[in-house]
Formats: sequence, structure tokens, C-alpha cells
Amino acid sequence: MFESAEIGHSVADEVYKENVPTLREALLAAQFDFTTAKKFPVIVIVGGVDGAGKGETVNLLSEWMDARHIQTRALGEPTTEELDRPTMWRFWRQLPPKGKIGVFFGAWHTQPILRRAYGEIGNAELDHACDEIVRFERMLAAEGALILKFWFHLSKKRQKKRLKSLAKDKKTRWRVTKTDWKHFELYDTFREVSERALRRTSTAEAPWVVVEGTDPNYRYLTVGQAILDALKRRLATLDAPKVTPPVIAAEPVAAPAVDGNHLLRSLDLNKSLSPEEYDERLTAAERKLSLLSRHKRFRKHSVIAAFEGSDAAGKGGAIRRLAATLDARQYSIVPIAAPTEEERAQPYLWRFWRHIPGKGRFTIYDRSWYGRVLVERVEGFCGEADWRRAYEEINDFEEQLVRNGAVVSKFWLQIDKETQLARFQEREQTGFKHYKITAEDWRNRDKWDAYEVAVGEMVDRTSTEIAPWTLVEANDKHYARVKVLETLADRLEAALDR
Amino acid sequence: MFESAEIGHSVADEVYKENVPTLREALLAAQFDFTTAKKFPVIVIVGGVDGAGKGETVNLLSEWMDARHIQTRALGEPTTEELDRPTMWRFWRQLPPKGKIGVFFGAWHTQPILRRAYGEIGNAELDHACDEIVRFERMLAAEGALILKFWFHLSKKRQKKRLKSLAKDKKTRWRVTKTDWKHFELYDTFREVSERALRRTSTAEAPWVVVEGTDPNYRYLTVGQAILDALKRRLATLDAPKVTPPVIAAEPVAAPAVDGNHLLRSLDLNKSLSPEEYDERLTAAERKLSLLSRHKRFRKHSVIAAFEGSDAAGKGGAIRRLAATLDARQYSIVPIAAPTEEERAQPYLWRFWRHIPGKGRFTIYDRSWYGRVLVERVEGFCGEADWRRAYEEINDFEEQLVRNGAVVSKFWLQIDKETQLARFQEREQTGFKHYKITAEDWRNRDKWDAYEVAVGEMVDRTSTEIAPWTLVEANDKHYARVKVLETLADRLEAALDR
Repeated sequence: MFESAEIGHSVADEVYKENVPTLREALLAAQFDFTTAKKFPVIVIVGGVDGAGKGETVNLLSEWMDARHIQTRALGEPTTEELDRPTMWRFWRQLPPKGKIGVFFGAWHTQPILRRAYGEIGNAELDHACDEIVRFERMLAAEGALILKFWFHLSKKRQKKRLKSLAKDKKTRWRVTKTDWKHFELYDTFREVSERALRRTSTAEAPWVVVEGTDPNYRYLTVGQAILDALKRRLATLDAPKVTPPVIAAEPVAAPAVDGNHLLRSLDLNKSLSPEEYDERLTAAERKLSLLSRHKRFRKHSVIAAFEGSDAAGKGGAIRRLAATLDARQYSIVPIAAPTEEERAQPYLWRFWRHIPGKGRFTIYDRSWYGRVLVERVEGFCGEADWRRAYEEINDFEEQLVRNGAVVSKFWLQIDKETQLARFQEREQTGFKHYKITAEDWRNRDKWDAYEVAVGEMVDRTSTEIAPWTLVEANDKHYARVKVLETLADRLEAALDR
Repeated sequence: MFESAEIGHSVADEVYKENVPTLREALLAAQFDFTTAKKFPVIVIVGGVDGAGKGETVNLLSEWMDARHIQTRALGEPTTEELDRPTMWRFWRQLPPKGKIGVFFGAWHTQPILRRAYGEIGNAELDHACDEIVRFERMLAAEGALILKFWFHLSKKRQKKRLKSLAKDKKTRWRVTKTDWKHFELYDTFREVSERALRRTSTAEAPWVVVEGTDPNYRYLTVGQAILDALKRRLATLDAPKVTPPVIAAEPVAAPAVDGNHLLRSLDLNKSLSPEEYDERLTAAERKLSLLSRHKRFRKHSVIAAFEGSDAAGKGGAIRRLAATLDARQYSIVPIAAPTEEERAQPYLWRFWRHIPGKGRFTIYDRSWYGRVLVERVEGFCGEADWRRAYEEINDFEEQLVRNGAVVSKFWLQIDKETQLARFQEREQTGFKHYKITAEDWRNRDKWDAYEVAVGEMVDRTSTEIAPWTLVEANDKHYARVKVLETLADRLEAALDR
């Protein structure tokens, strides 16, 4: 991996001076096209050995390009807020939007490498972390991000020389820290660990580019040129005519419907509760949930509840019932409508990641990331390849939540067509409910069958042992509300008992 | 995952009888098109709980379709030959070629699930195995395979009922084994483990299709229909006009050459040995290698040596020198020329996998899997996307070899242009060497610079801490041969000492 970065690359000063103006001009021009197009984000990751000039290179890039559209992220120790959430949360919140360049000084690969080098984890855990990184970057690339990863390298001899010369000079002495020397003592270990991590996270979508860090001129030109080439190559694809293969995938998403039977149709939607049963079970579930939410072990957990369902199935009512059980300071309700401009400039999971609760809290999503495989799929808002890959991306997302202590509960509220019609008509006729029914609701109703297929495949692909779907028979609103509360209480109880 | 497969799917006998003829006819027609096109293989994987009718379904498929083009693989315990090699070797050798359907009864997912269910491994190891499976299947899909994975499921109640009824009937009693009942006792564990494994190995390229196994009619129609749909969808893409996006990837493969310096150019090709040095070092290296190859600890290892290099750089001589050191029963030399018809019908790594040595043996590849990122790349024999993904696929391949105890050594023999010219001319003038020089050699020589770039990027992307490249300065053949032998001896010694 490091072969080419140990041969003593260098660029003479006069050659450097001759080349820089052209490079700068080209970079600025490409950046301008990129910024105005706003079609994709650029993620630049800078990693590597200490003293190889990472900082200077990033500084120079900001100088060469339009710094207003470059976001530099130097990630130090995670904040308490970040520690409270899944590891990747801090990176999600820092992702550059389309049309911006995000430069990460140390990113998702840093901690696994450091921890392995210090012997806190073994190779198996390092490999596992690498696999997660690959999945994450593959998702970013599929969402359109241009990912450029630079690894600044120095041979052992050169690193020692450089640290010494920095330490000797009064003006630069402050830059050489004890940690730098400590890392140097571990040079061979670091080299081996880095090589393993680089090997396992260099993919076709996001390969590491190893840059020899000895000579500043060489280093600056290399990184500048690599960014320029990549930007220009990618921008060229925007102008090219769109080509879409006629058939994207032949693989079935789920079993074909050969007997006309279907998960949703197998539900007994008329399940109901008598007023007495309702009162009794509601009170019991509320009490249980309320106690659990104040339990001291809940401080190590959180609850993420996602509500989906047919239009007019009673999601709002079920959510209100749930919220009423909780302390208002303890939960947030996140209603998901069409994404904002800011959200559209990010990968689709971004707007859900941003609301992930800290420990001891509830987040209730009124509609959720499942929009990708429901409305976006059925309405054609995203391509077939996009919703097909979403199942694994969503399972991956939820696994990260669960691993961080979250109870992830997903509710699908189902009513039959007649009940929906009656509720639509009632809404149209009732003054204060009028706003709740739109032309879109009627259009969705026409696509009942397409949604039914999408819902079935969604449940089959994303109801998992760690984050199961609960199908809620919702013709009777009372029955539905109680089922939601009881399910959530049971799952939370199980998590606290574990 | 199992929701839709627990709702009691069934197809009435008269409906079944009415539908089967049409389905069979369509399947036969699609299979005929598929077999004659010979454009891709179909890999059908059948997994799931015991007693869910896996066997009957596969039997019926062979009956419905043209059994001559279906290869059924029931993989039991690995053979000793298989145990001697990396886990995936046994699956590679069973892969169906283009135009054939390979039906696997239990495949790469079986062992990890069983071992997890029996508590032999934990979730971390299961996840790791799943990640490997995903990489493997992604590679197969990228190579064109159509992968159909069916998971036969029974709810706990139904499985018990089915096992009992099979056991009661004299004609079927033999089919219910003690293992079946033992598995049944572990039903809940199996369910949870399977769900985890299915979740982590269901990808856009190769999703699991869960099939309810209770009703034979339903089961047969579902699998038949799913195979038919997928075959037809894929065959339709063959007729569609080819669309190739103008620019495939913007990401750099390695650092751009801003200073004109290059790994290969940084070598001192004139390193040489005096006749005395040569004799002395050659004898010492041969002696060392010979002793190591007979060491008892070598019985747990193997050596895989790959030779690449410029034309006329002396690969043949170096290989002969190495072979002369070893016992002829202990090594195989695999010369890699253009792939045979049989090899072209398989993923490109297949022809290298087939020659992987067992423990205590050497395999010497005269040219290797690196052809993908050298000649195939430079000559345009494969697409850009193909050689770009090859780096990770190759690293993955070599990691599997190393994990199995192999010492993987890769030698690039480099000479300068003048030396090559002199050797070409000498070959043309010397009778018995005449056959060694062809028009192709002269053509390759014209592409010297393109090869130089490809070699540099290859080394930067695939020289790893577990399987490093050794660059061999080869203007002096004696120097080159000694460097090869010494390197190999040192690496083997290090492996035996570990």
C-alpha cells in the first residue's frame, strides 16, 4: 500500500511555482461549476501519520479554493451528546450537503485504527469496523457523494527526521506533541494496522490514495491535482446524456403472490375492544410504560418508535395516546413530510439520523425512513436501484440504533378500504378535520394494491429479530391504540430486563 | 423476515393442476433461451428449516425443467481435500458455468448458522461470516450471476405437525432423522439466528426469498414462478441495447503522477551479483528453502507464489530455479495463458481458485489473477468498473488464502526498455528461443507507459501486510533469481516461526 509513497517524491520549487497558478485556476473553475450545480457533495478525508503535513495541505486547499464552500471538520474527542448516540451519528451531522466540500481531518476510520494500534481491540473488531465503514461509504457513494480519501504517509526514517526538525525550530516546536512521539514509538504497529485498515476500506467507490508526505510541493500538487481530476470527471457525467438500463434487477424482492393471499389481507382488521376492556388495558399499559420510562435502567436505553400506515388509519391518534403517557420533557415527535431543501441536499437517511434521541429519551416518528420503500417506490420518486438497496441500508441503520441501546419499534396501522372511505368522507364533512383530507389522499387510495405489495415486501425484508414490525389491526381505534402501547411496553420491559 | 411465511399460504389442488402446465411450459422455454444464450449462470440456493419440503421442491424443479442443464449440489460434510483449503474453495469448484443452473442445497450460509445456533460461535463471528458472504455474492453478481436464494420456513407449530405426520407414515418415516428433532428443540434459537443471518445477507443483488413450506402446491408454484420471473427479466436485458455510462468513476485509483517519479522508475535495475556472490547466495537460499519445505510445521502451511513482470524479464528462469529447489511431488506450476472455454464461463478468479494447493504444498503461478488489472485493463478486455473492483476482490481472495495458512508471495520482475530490446532481438536470432518472441510482445512493448501506470497502481492497491509484492530488479538474471529465492525463504521462515 505504501510502496509508491516511499520513493522520495519531490517537486522542485521552480516547477511548483510554475504549476500552481494553472492548478489554482482550474480548481476554482471546477469548484464554481460544482457549487452552482449543487448535484453532489464532495467528502475529502485526510488521514495518515503525524507530521506528514495533513494540516498544511488542508489549509492550502482552503486558500486555493473558495473557502466559503469548504467545510473543514477537525473531529477530536466525541462530545457527551455524541457519546450518547451511535458512533456514526457525529459523522452524519457533519456531512457536507450537495455543492459543498467537506474536509474531514480524521473521520470514521480514525478510532478503529487507534484502538487497534493501542491494543484495545483485536483484528476481528478492526475488520468488523472496516466492514461497517465500507457499508457506510458504499451508501454515501450510491447517494451520489464523491468520496476522496487521502492517506499521508512517511517512511519511518523520514518521519523521525521530520519530527526532529520541527522540534528544533522555535517557530514549529509547539506542533510536535508528546502524543506524536508516542505514536512514533509505535510506528511499526501503526504501519501494520493502517495497512490492514486501508486494505479493507479501499473499495472501487472510495479507494484510499496514499500520498508521500515528505516534500510539501509534491504533497500540495498531488492532492490538488487529484481533487481537480475527480471533480472534472464527475462534473463531466452531469452533462452526459442520462442512460438508464431498461431492466435494473432480475432478482425477486420477495416471494411472488401465487395464491392471492397476502400478509395484510391475512389480518383480522375487525379486532376490537369493548369500552371496559379498553379502559382497563389502556390504563394498565399506560401505567407500565410510564413506570418503565422512569426506571433507572432506562438511562442506558432509548425508544425509537416509527409509525406508518394507510391514510386515515389513526397514526395521529395512536401517537397522541403514546405521548400522553410520557413526560413531555422526555420525548420528541418528528412528523415527516416532504423533505426540506436542506434535507434534499443530503443522503435520504440524514433527516432521520439528525433526530436520533439520546439515552433515556423517546423519539416518535410520524412516518419514517420507510417512506423510501413505500411512497418513494410506489410514486417513482426514487429509482428501482435506490429502493432495492434501501432494505439493507435501513437494516444497517436500525442495527446501529439497537446496538446503542435503543428499542426500535415499528408500527404499521392497517384499515380496510371501506373504513378508509368512511373516514375520508367524515373528514370532508367535519369542519375541524377538513384539513386532514387532500386530493393526494384520494390519489393514494387508487394505488391501494401497489401499496399493499410494497408494505408486504417492506415487512418481509425489514422486520428483524432486533427491530420487528408490529402490524396493527386498526379498524377499531381503541384496539389499535392499546396494541401499540402494550407492544411498546413489552419491548421496553424486555430491553430493561436484559 | 418470516411474517408473510406464517399466514397459511395454500393453493387448492384444482388451481394447482390448472396452473402447472403453463408454468412448466414457460419455465422450459425460458430455460432453453438461457441455455442457448450461455451468457450468465443461475445460482439457486435452497435453505431453511427441516421438513419444509426443500428436497421435494428441488426434485420437482428438475422434473419440470431440462435436468441436463441443472446441477444439483447437496453439500454435506467437507471432504479432507476441502478441509485442507479455504472454506470457500468447495463452493468455487461447484459453481455452475454460464448457461447452467446450479442448485445448492445448503451453501455458504449453512455452516455459520448451524455453528451459531449450537453456540460454537458468537454473534460477532456470525456477522463476520455474513459480511464475507455478502462480498462473495456481490462479486458473483458483478460477474453476471443471477442469484436466487430461497429460504423455506415453517412456523413452530406447523413444523412440529409436519415432523409428526412424516414420522407416522411408514413411507416417509425414514426422512425424519434424530437431527431433525434435535433441531426442532432448538427452534427458537434457530429462528433468531436465521433471522439475523438472513437480515445480514439479504442484499439488493441477492435477497433471500422466504417461502412458506406448509403447502406443497404453494411451495412449488412460488419457487417455480420466482425462477421464471427472474430468468425472464434477466433474459430481457440481454436483448436490450447495451448502454454504457460515458464516465464510470471519478475516484482516483492512486495518487496522480505530478513529479514524473514512479515506483518502477525508482528501482535500481542494474543491481547485480558477481559469479561468486551468486553461487554463494543461491546455494544458501536453496538450502534454506529446501529445509523449510521439509519442516514439519510446513504441514500446516502452503506457499502460493505468483510471478508477473515485463516480457522477457526472466519469469521463466526464476520459476525454474525455484522449482529446482523443491521436491517435484511437492509443487505445481500453473502457467496462465488465455482462459479456456470452461474458464471463460466462470467468474475470473475461478481458474485460480481451482489450483489452490493443499497444506504442505507449493503452487507457482506463471502470470496470475493480476492479469485482470494488467493486461485486461490495458488492452480493454474488461470494463473499467470490472478492473476497479478487482483490487478489493483480489485482496479478499488473498486474505482467505493467508487465513488458511498460505504464504502468498507476489513477484514483479522489472527490466528496462533497452534490456528488453536486447533480449527480444536475441530471442529472434536464437533458434531454440525463437518461439518465445511473438508479435504480441512487440505490441505490448509499445504500451510500456500504460503498463507502468497499471503496475504502479496494482502494487499500491494490492501490496498488503499479509501478501506483499516484491519488486525484483531483473536486468541481471542472477540477481533476480537470488532475490526471489531469498524473499520466499524469509517469508516462509517467518510464517513457520509464528
